Amino acid sequence: MSSLFESFVSTPEVSEALGDRAVIEAMLRFEAALVRAQASAGLLPQDAAQSIIGTCKVELFDVPKLVRESRRTLCMVTPLVASLRETVALFNPDAAAWVHFGCSDQELLDTALALVMRDVLKRIETDLGKTVEALLALAVRHESDAMLARSPLQAATITSFGLTCSQWAVPLVRSQQQLQSATDQALRLHLGHAVITLADMQGKGLQVMSLMATELQLKAPHFAGDSAHDQTVALACALGLLVGNLGRIAFEIAQMAQFEFGELTQGNVAPAEVPGAKPVSPVASSLLCMVAQVAEQRVPHQVSALLSTLSSQHGNALGNWQTQLVQWPALLSASQSISHAVAQLVAGLRAEPQRMRANLEAVRASLSAKEAKVRFSPELLHQATELTRSQVKALRDPL
Amino acid sequence: MSSLFESFVSTPEVSEALGDRAVIEAMLRFEAALVRAQASAGLLPQDAAQSIIGTCKVELFDVPKLVRESRRTLCMVTPLVASLRETVALFNPDAAAWVHFGCSDQELLDTALALVMRDVLKRIETDLGKTVEALLALAVRHESDAMLARSPLQAATITSFGLTCSQWAVPLVRSQQQLQSATDQALRLHLGHAVITLADMQGKGLQVMSLMATELQLKAPHFAGDSAHDQTVALACALGLLVGNLGRIAFEIAQMAQFEFGELTQGNVAPAEVPGAKPVSPVASSLLCMVAQVAEQRVPHQVSALLSTLSSQHGNALGNWQTQLVQWPALLSASQSISHAVAQLVAGLRAEPQRMRANLEAVRASLSAKEAKVRFSPELLHQATELTRSQVKALRDPL
Amino acid sequence: MSSLFESFVSTPEVSEALGDRAVIEAMLRFEAALVRAQASAGLLPQDAAQSIIGTCKVELFDVPKLVRESRRTLCMVTPLVASLRETVALFNPDAAAWVHFGCSDQELLDTALALVMRDVLKRIETDLGKTVEALLALAVRHESDAMLARSPLQAATITSFGLTCSQWAVPLVRSQQQLQSATDQALRLHLGHAVITLADMQGKGLQVMSLMATELQLKAPHFAGDSAHDQTVALACALGLLVGNLGRIAFEIAQMAQFEFGELTQGNVAPAEVPGAKPVSPVASSLLCMVAQVAEQRVPHQVSALLSTLSSQHGNALGNWQTQLVQWPALLSASQSISHAVAQLVAGLRAEPQRMRANLEAVRASLSAKEAKVRFSPELLHQATELTRSQVKALRDPL
Amino acid sequence: MSSLFESFVSTPEVSEALGDRAVIEAMLRFEAALVRAQASAGLLPQDAAQSIIGTCKVELFDVPKLVRESRRTLCMVTPLVASLRETVALFNPDAAAWVHFGCSDQELLDTALALVMRDVLKRIETDLGKTVEALLALAVRHESDAMLARSPLQAATITSFGLTCSQWAVPLVRSQQQLQSATDQALRLHLGHAVITLADMQGKGLQVMSLMATELQLKAPHFAGDSAHDQTVALACALGLLVGNLGRIAFEIAQMAQFEFGELTQGNVAPAEVPGAKPVSPVASSLLCMVAQVAEQRVPHQVSALLSTLSSQHGNALGNWQTQLVQWPALLSASQSISHAVAQLVAGLRAEPQRMRANLEAVRASLSAKEAKVRFSPELLHQATELTRSQVKALRDPL
Repeated sequence: MSSLFESFVSTPEVSEALGDRAVIEAMLRFEAALVRAQASAGLLPQDAAQSIIGTCKVELFDVPKLVRESRRTLCMVTPLVASLRETVALFNPDAAAWVHFGCSDQELLDTALALVMRDVLKRIETDLGKTVEALLALAVRHESDAMLARSPLQAATITSFGLTCSQWAVPLVRSQQQLQSATDQALRLHLGHAVITLADMQGKGLQVMSLMATELQLKAPHFAGDSAHDQTVALACALGLLVGNLGRIAFEIAQMAQFEFGELTQGNVAPAEVPGAKPVSPVASSLLCMVAQVAEQRVPHQVSALLSTLSSQHGNALGNWQTQLVQWPALLSASQSISHAVAQLVAGLRAEPQRMRANLEAVRASLSAKEAKVRFSPELLHQATELTRSQVKALRDPL
Repeated sequence: MSSLFESFVSTPEVSEALGDRAVIEAMLRFEAALVRAQASAGLLPQDAAQSIIGTCKVELFDVPKLVRESRRTLCMVTPLVASLRETVALFNPDAAAWVHFGCSDQELLDTALALVMRDVLKRIETDLGKTVEALLALAVRHESDAMLARSPLQAATITSFGLTCSQWAVPLVRSQQQLQSATDQALRLHLGHAVITLADMQGKGLQVMSLMATELQLKAPHFAGDSAHDQTVALACALGLLVGNLGRIAFEIAQMAQFEFGELTQGNVAPAEVPGAKPVSPVASSLLCMVAQVAEQRVPHQVSALLSTLSSQHGNALGNWQTQLVQWPALLSASQSISHAVAQLVAGLRAEPQRMRANLEAVRASLSAKEAKVRFSPELLHQATELTRSQVKALRDPL
Repeated sequence: MSSLFESFVSTPEVSEALGDRAVIEAMLRFEAALVRAQASAGLLPQDAAQSIIGTCKVELFDVPKLVRESRRTLCMVTPLVASLRETVALFNPDAAAWVHFGCSDQELLDTALALVMRDVLKRIETDLGKTVEALLALAVRHESDAMLARSPLQAATITSFGLTCSQWAVPLVRSQQQLQSATDQALRLHLGHAVITLADMQGKGLQVMSLMATELQLKAPHFAGDSAHDQTVALACALGLLVGNLGRIAFEIAQMAQFEFGELTQGNVAPAEVPGAKPVSPVASSLLCMVAQVAEQRVPHQVSALLSTLSSQHGNALGNWQTQLVQWPALLSASQSISHAVAQLVAGLRAEPQRMRANLEAVRASLSAKEAKVRFSPELLHQATELTRSQVKALRDPL
Repeated sequence: MSSLFESFVSTPEVSEALGDRAVIEAMLRFEAALVRAQASAGLLPQDAAQSIIGTCKVELFDVPKLVRESRRTLCMVTPLVASLRETVALFNPDAAAWVHFGCSDQELLDTALALVMRDVLKRIETDLGKTVEALLALAVRHESDAMLARSPLQAATITSFGLTCSQWAVPLVRSQQQLQSATDQALRLHLGHAVITLADMQGKGLQVMSLMATELQLKAPHFAGDSAHDQTVALACALGLLVGNLGRIAFEIAQMAQFEFGELTQGNVAPAEVPGAKPVSPVASSLLCMVAQVAEQRVPHQVSALLSTLSSQHGNALGNWQTQLVQWPALLSASQSISHAVAQLVAGLRAEPQRMRANLEAVRASLSAKEAKVRFSPELLHQATELTRSQVKALRDPL
């Protein structure tokens, strides 16, 4: 489908990390790890394993042809396995029979998905770390720069831009922890979902599982035979929460950067980068806000779709697992886009304390003297500064 | 992103019809139609128009490079327009200034989207027509073949498989009409959204609009300056309804084809086509059901996402329009996948009247004699047959 | 559940129109119309029909008790039918057997839902008509009052507030037509879904159907035996589109009414009505915007949920029909809330042409002289005025 | 709105726990705790606090009138606070001024919501505990009862019903832990969201916060001034995961209980309880499955809606917080309905090992002798039994 239209929800790096070549490479890593473990457990001859491992190299395969075959047969696994078997047979006919032995297509694909997910999740973590750092730096720099604390139906009052930044950082730090712990539970080896799989391995199933998990640096399944996907969907939820927390920052920046507000501008985007940008917009980075918004409008739907698949993932229900495979790349991609866009956005943010102060004064002037005194007392700004300092300290500690 | 994972929600044909090359071709058709109309209206010299029209050929452009540029700048239009302008300037420097004159990026992209949508919608219509035809043929063939009328909490009774088929067809025929009328309203030329666009054309705006609409075979905007997207989202709703109606057929077929039911099998899928298919499954087409289900699980979410974009499509709201661009290809693609899968599914469907009868008898035997007499009287089957005949006649009439 | 929390998505009037008493009254209207039609068709004695009809009065029933019974048994029909039968039997024991004869629970409930829906839809239509009228009046009054045409990434230009208002009205007028036509198709008598129902009526089924439809002022089913719900879900889509179109207006008003913009204020909400309102907010009606937003955030999800139920509405699928019953009141209620809130919002809207002009001048001042001349030429305002006039004329014609 | 239609997504107990009286009672608990803490901190006179605390009794208030007032003014707090102030003034005019001192409406409502949530979450936990216990008991009882391991496209094989039950339990045990930890993070006192709130309390804000948290048995805010709602939405996600895990069990039971499968029946529902139940259905509890399904179809949408509110919960964004208030009761109610229905469903479940065996034999008979030997070897059943035992042991340990 047109990658033009997808510019807002996928970066080139992640398009590659989730591309056909990367997925097939991950599938081959699984097949290699499988026979290596099976050979160690004495289930198949070492030289058969070596032949297969030596063939599990993505450059030996015609990726576009495999993709065409997969789409024609609506089967993502058979064409690759057949091609692997054929190539192995050229050099070591006896080894061919051991290819993909004792595992199901779903186990292979789910594990391959875990491997490509890990790459994208690392990028998200990196961007998230940068955003938090940048927000804390802004918090320190602007700890005493007064701005309006806006809210729709309560009387306006005062805060500092520094406190606003540290309050943006708070839920992001929670998201960092949540994401880490959800990732830890979700990225698992998938093996032994059905009784027959482990049985095929003549009592060595658990040993194979453990060897493979170590090699692929994935956790073993929580329980033997556990094929529920709630742990992966829990990771989707963690991404949904992260995107919500990031979206909030993008929306608030977009509001404060409106021409009529003028409280934020963008320092680091060269005009040439943004052809046709509205000359009157002080924030060239509306583009980045846009990326953030597009991602934010998609992700909750994607999480909901994944939650829906949980209920009939088993038995002979049709298509739930396939729906998961279709949703995951889109969810990862949108999550990474917004993480990257917000990191860039925050990196180049420039506060305009004079405009913040001017907007505040305009509101103060519209109030009665008494009301103005209560709501905009200098003491409040002092408290905001104190609060910023203590929050930044607390947030930096666990980093 | 991995096209492997997308096999269930896009056919190769539609991947192409919605691909980068097709989108850029549609954009060039817009640019050519624009200058042709403007030249006719006397807004620019005929020879400038001819130079531009002659350059609006997709084979003159480096599509992958344009895509890369678009993604880098987060702008889907500027790289193409710049490249078009440059190429025109090589032969006719004076003409270059007239490229993309008097129109906005959104107008260009929305119109290009309408053009590629039309291609996909035609495919959907064709598949839908085939499905309806095949269902009516099955209805005629099995008008008196008794089967259980199942429902979760009411006493089971009798129907005919023929009546079931014609009742599957009824909502599809409604969808055909709905889709046609929604398409008719949605596929429009986008031009003149802002006052300035029409003003740029020195009072000839409406004439240009009408000439372009004729050339591109699209309707003119409903009102000058009407930039609301409710008509396109109404088309998304019509697709959502169609997919729901198709999903129902796929789910019911899947149920009746379960091994324990055995009432439907598949005639036209050669075993070789379905490598690794479960030997005990009498319906090789579980695969096609799966396609249908995956599509059905996605489409309602996509419609909801498009409905959400309506509310802030104007003003300086961020990203709503981009969200629409991102959602449409996915929605079209999923809708076409399910239409195609159900057409194939129904084309190869083989009813097993003996199994239908046997399942019915098993239920009858579990009832009291009196209850069985009421609920399974031969008169009911006779009525089902009559009803099938009159429905098929009525449904064939408008075709 | 707490009606406190629901204040934002249901008005008292609609809570009543969708309340237990109203639903039971509609069910009794169905039962009365059923026996009246059956008596006319000679299926049951006239005096039995009269006894039943005389008892179909909501004031004869203990509504809270029926509700408790329905919830306890998870069955919305049996307690009422049993109670009706009992009461009839007190006066005319022979008539009791004819109560609810030849129809299913789903037919009764779906028809009762159609009856209560009609009441709510009429309220929505009335509010919608008022909103369109008010917008056209504003369009006329402000046809030449200049304001910024804002958009996120294109150079700002000029429009008139009158044109903005008529452009808000355009999609609403489309929604009026769509809603009318979807309502017309969706509000039907439900009878004869299964073969047995019509068979019970000894060949008089179609006659009964037609008599009942006339009495209840509902259309007869599109086809005998047609139990698909796509026509009702199409009505849900029409409501979704309406809510999107209304949401857009609420969001734009909210933006223009921000303190920093100051372009819109509210004339008709007495301060006492809005206790605790932010003194600095020039638009007391943030509350109404909020209602609109809450509704807008819910409705797309509700439409999606209803679309999802289409696919397995038949066979012995569980719960899809019940999901429809649960979703409809919430969808109707949210749609009516937003319709009512926007009608109130627009009725009291006061434009501040000086602020509009001042914001426009601030942007103009930030541009180069040449750019400013092109983008803010007096000719553009003149065109906006002309456009407003012609649109208002065209929109008033069909009204 | 009609509580008839809501029978499938709310139990009477939870309707009460989330009802107006319960919410107002929770609001009064907040107000009492607030002044008690403020008096301890020396911010107000002890006797004023005592007067207010003595008046914070729900039976002193006209709940329906407060609800009517709240709906009329679209404000859920002011009518109650005004009425509380008035009543306090009757006895102690000086105390009235201290009512609701130094806190915002949102803080009051969010805390009250936390208090009513806690009650519902406890019920969910209880039902969940029962379901897990019952499943483990079934697992033990049927550890060696063979059944088909069904899957859509892979060759069928063998498992035991005991293993199926323990595999249903595995994700539920994960959900128990997740829910507990998410609840622990989400149920917090809301106080001090804005700088001004804490400032009003003259440096005693943190002390008040800590005293109130202790009294109400809620955690204090994660950070002073932290008004992000991501922790509550994380709880919504945990409920979404739980509902998905429960839905899976309900769907699989529904499948195995179909007449044509006959593998499960229901022992504990007396026929009289299910009026009009289909005589041929061996599982009277289709009703309970239906409850489960209705809940399952709603909850993912509700989680998605709550995720969407995260992004603009701050600044002067409109309605996001109100959307949360509207969504929560529906989400809690649907989650509790499905938890309760599945607990009942599992409690009365009766396996039919003969039918399981017969269905298995029918599939085995359709295979080649060799294939049948591999896929249905007695060794596999033995392994399933072993696996069941070890899983049950592991799952019982943490209980």
